[in-house]
Amino acid sequence: MKTFKPRVLVFIASPRKYGSAAQLAQIAVKGVLDAGGEVELIYLYDYVIKPCIGCVSDNVKYCKYPCIISDDDFNKLAEQVVKSNGLIFSTPVYWYSPAGVLKNLIDRFTSLENAIFHGSRSLLEGKVAGFIAVGADSGVLMTIAYLMSVMNSMGVIIPPWSMAYTHITNPLEDENALRDAYNVGYLLVETIKALKSYGVHIGYKPDVNIRELVELVKDYMSRVNVEKEQRFKLLENLLNK
Amino acid sequence: MKTFKPRVLVFIASPRKYGSAAQLAQIAVKGVLDAGGEVELIYLYDYVIKPCIGCVSDNVKYCKYPCIISDDDFNKLAEQVVKSNGLIFSTPVYWYSPAGVLKNLIDRFTSLENAIFHGSRSLLEGKVAGFIAVGADSGVLMTIAYLMSVMNSMGVIIPPWSMAYTHITNPLEDENALRDAYNVGYLLVETIKALKSYGVHIGYKPDVNIRELVELVKDYMSRVNVEKEQRFKLLENLLNK
Amino acid sequence: MKTFKPRVLVFIASPRKYGSAAQLAQIAVKGVLDAGGEVELIYLYDYVIKPCIGCVSDNVKYCKYPCIISDDDFNKLAEQVVKSNGLIFSTPVYWYSPAGVLKNLIDRFTSLENAIFHGSRSLLEGKVAGFIAVGADSGVLMTIAYLMSVMNSMGVIIPPWSMAYTHITNPLEDENALRDAYNVGYLLVETIKALKSYGVHIGYKPDVNIRELVELVKDYMSRVNVEKEQRFKLLENLLNK
Amino acid sequence: MKTFKPRVLVFIASPRKYGSAAQLAQIAVKGVLDAGGEVELIYLYDYVIKPCIGCVSDNVKYCKYPCIISDDDFNKLAEQVVKSNGLIFSTPVYWYSPAGVLKNLIDRFTSLENAIFHGSRSLLEGKVAGFIAVGADSGVLMTIAYLMSVMNSMGVIIPPWSMAYTHITNPLEDENALRDAYNVGYLLVETIKALKSYGVHIGYKPDVNIRELVELVKDYMSRVNVEKEQRFKLLENLLNK
Repeated sequence: MKTFKPRVLVFIASPRKYGSAAQLAQIAVKGVLDAGGEVELIYLYDYVIKPCIGCVSDNVKYCKYPCIISDDDFNKLAEQVVKSNGLIFSTPVYWYSPAGVLKNLIDRFTSLENAIFHGSRSLLEGKVAGFIAVGADSGVLMTIAYLMSVMNSMGVIIPPWSMAYTHITNPLEDENALRDAYNVGYLLVETIKALKSYGVHIGYKPDVNIRELVELVKDYMSRVNVEKEQRFKLLENLLNK
Repeated sequence: MKTFKPRVLVFIASPRKYGSAAQLAQIAVKGVLDAGGEVELIYLYDYVIKPCIGCVSDNVKYCKYPCIISDDDFNKLAEQVVKSNGLIFSTPVYWYSPAGVLKNLIDRFTSLENAIFHGSRSLLEGKVAGFIAVGADSGVLMTIAYLMSVMNSMGVIIPPWSMAYTHITNPLEDENALRDAYNVGYLLVETIKALKSYGVHIGYKPDVNIRELVELVKDYMSRVNVEKEQRFKLLENLLNK
Repeated sequence: MKTFKPRVLVFIASPRKYGSAAQLAQIAVKGVLDAGGEVELIYLYDYVIKPCIGCVSDNVKYCKYPCIISDDDFNKLAEQVVKSNGLIFSTPVYWYSPAGVLKNLIDRFTSLENAIFHGSRSLLEGKVAGFIAVGADSGVLMTIAYLMSVMNSMGVIIPPWSMAYTHITNPLEDENALRDAYNVGYLLVETIKALKSYGVHIGYKPDVNIRELVELVKDYMSRVNVEKEQRFKLLENLLNK
Repeated sequence: MKTFKPRVLVFIASPRKYGSAAQLAQIAVKGVLDAGGEVELIYLYDYVIKPCIGCVSDNVKYCKYPCIISDDDFNKLAEQVVKSNGLIFSTPVYWYSPAGVLKNLIDRFTSLENAIFHGSRSLLEGKVAGFIAVGADSGVLMTIAYLMSVMNSMGVIIPPWSMAYTHITNPLEDENALRDAYNVGYLLVETIKALKSYGVHIGYKPDVNIRELVELVKDYMSRVNVEKEQRFKLLENLLNK
């Protein structure tokens, strides 16, 4: 039986292949390989990714995959994303957030997530992501918190400790960053394997019984009504003092 | 054989038990129960949680669990956190971030995470978290992105779609919010079960071979050195034009 | 004639009076004094500031100044805020954001801002603010961006370069941080003096002619309607390809 | 004598000239004009702005104005920025942050700010900025907080209430947004005029006496040393309990 080898894409959003983002990405790759995954490195600056033109704001149905912008490299990259199990984003911090080239990629990911409006699931749902940000100045956490919340709201799972960063120009002098970057890769693959072992796809349940939920809340509200009245009385008293 | 019932704590950081944060928390609870978990609701305003006094800045060893602040309710809550498998935080948005009472709780969580400096693992590692934020104005995403990145950097796993929010005063009028809140609970439990099924704890590997990683990067750097030289030459040319 | 001496409050949100936040605050004080201001230092950990109880969510009229929570130190501090011309916040970074004690203060500032719902102006309108954040780890910018956006949305003006931060444990080794902290104080006072010299209070104009604005936008829309139609046609063509 | 007419650039980062970002920008323009300013509208999607190639990370001297990327429209836009007194950014929210096209512009602004490393001042220092963000979903505040902190750290001044936003698809139905957008323009111009009236440029003072500042802090530290010792003793006692 063929063993399952999680497939991980590593996006490097730096114009400098010799820079810190690329270096720490190499470490994450090692973590991926050690945990039994396979990797493809994508240097975003080798591709043309045009800005999103916001079709979804015109009509939620207008945005679909493949993206209608067809004269650049996005759809080619997106295809690899769809086939992958995990994504690692390694970016320099440009003004406290990801490099513009990565922002353009994320904006275009809308076409993958927006499958939810075409009778399907987000094409990113169930994938697993890790994040690396480097910058001599500040803003690494702002960058990572940003990427993490966006990915999660497209349906992506975040493993524990899924971040590595450094403020030091030469990342080789920052042992914590090396260790963290390794773990970004390692724990990503472990998490993919855990999800696989479960057998069941963990995906958004759209078919919840709204009426039941509304009743449930109304019932709850009737139980806390006394507290509400007491609080209003208390506030009124305090205000009129 | 007894079935594994994931244990989920739901922290409600609103002073209003009848408010939107509490209402959506009820929906998340339903999601937890439907997925086979069990729940404990904690209304943070019923407890006294003093501000963190930052011992860790004096000496990393000074901060440990239980927290040395012993004349409030933190350690009691922390004990429940340690025993739990999952955490849901439901907070009103106070100025684009969690209510101060939840911020104090998070600051005090340092004592749980800081176990890494006492020969142990973060006492939050491997737990799974979900987030609900409500506010008539803006800032729900800023609040969620904040909580998510903090939890993750304490070792917590984030399920897909692990967020629910609303800008509408009466959340019962916001079907998306109801659906999302249900999924926050449901997918949380599913993720806990997936991790359990894997059998192996997914935790930070501190024992990486730093020297090996440094060599690996040096080797990589030698391979991209040509690109570095070409780029510098190009930049110099452009600058001297 | 008595010279105008801008009055600046410096809030230190650290439990450690000997810590970096307090040290850089001293530098900012020097900047304030050199520019001709006067200063009062407030160590927040010397005061009790209870969590906001969110009256504004019950009824926008319920929240007013002085705050109805009267058994703590908030109103005393708020009174000084109202009398001040400028505010400097110096905080350690606790999990990528201000210390909980400062978060509680900010949440309670709602009572000052909410004067807009009592026929008045925000009691913070026209004041000027600066920000200092310190932390060995990351998150200083996330902390400052947070504080800055909140203050601004309460009506506060932000001078140029109104931030100082350091990742270095001993801030005296970080010359940039020293220089920046000095400028936080200096430029704060300069900005207060500039606003004073103008003579006119720069405050929110609530009495705009909404109907006129709506007409203006409708007129604009009629002019771009051709572009809208062209774009929709283009998108439809691309989608049907 | 010719009256001073503040010159304001309004950047619209939406591909939809008929969209909410463009509509609220029109309102802000009205505010600018009413306050006595003059305006130029720039639709960013009409220009090509390539991603920043991060020269500054190679060598701080490599990044200068005009930017070495000369085969796109950045330098033309930058020239107008340099000549302006104020900037308004109106952007749709794409995944909780500015549209990628605006991110690219900001990344390229590095060449203006980086003048500080070429014996000059940031070419943005002393300018005044306002922000508009629109999005049916969440993230408007995250977008504005981001833009505000970046602009400020390039030397830009932020007037009071310098933000407008809406979650409503048709902004004409959101009176608060209309009023706020008007004020973004109006208060921007008022602030520019206040700064002008002061006569003195409010700019970063690089020539601070570092040695004096260090002495000042050392003196402060000697005064709080008792507190430090008491605190350490207290913590040690608590820890050993």
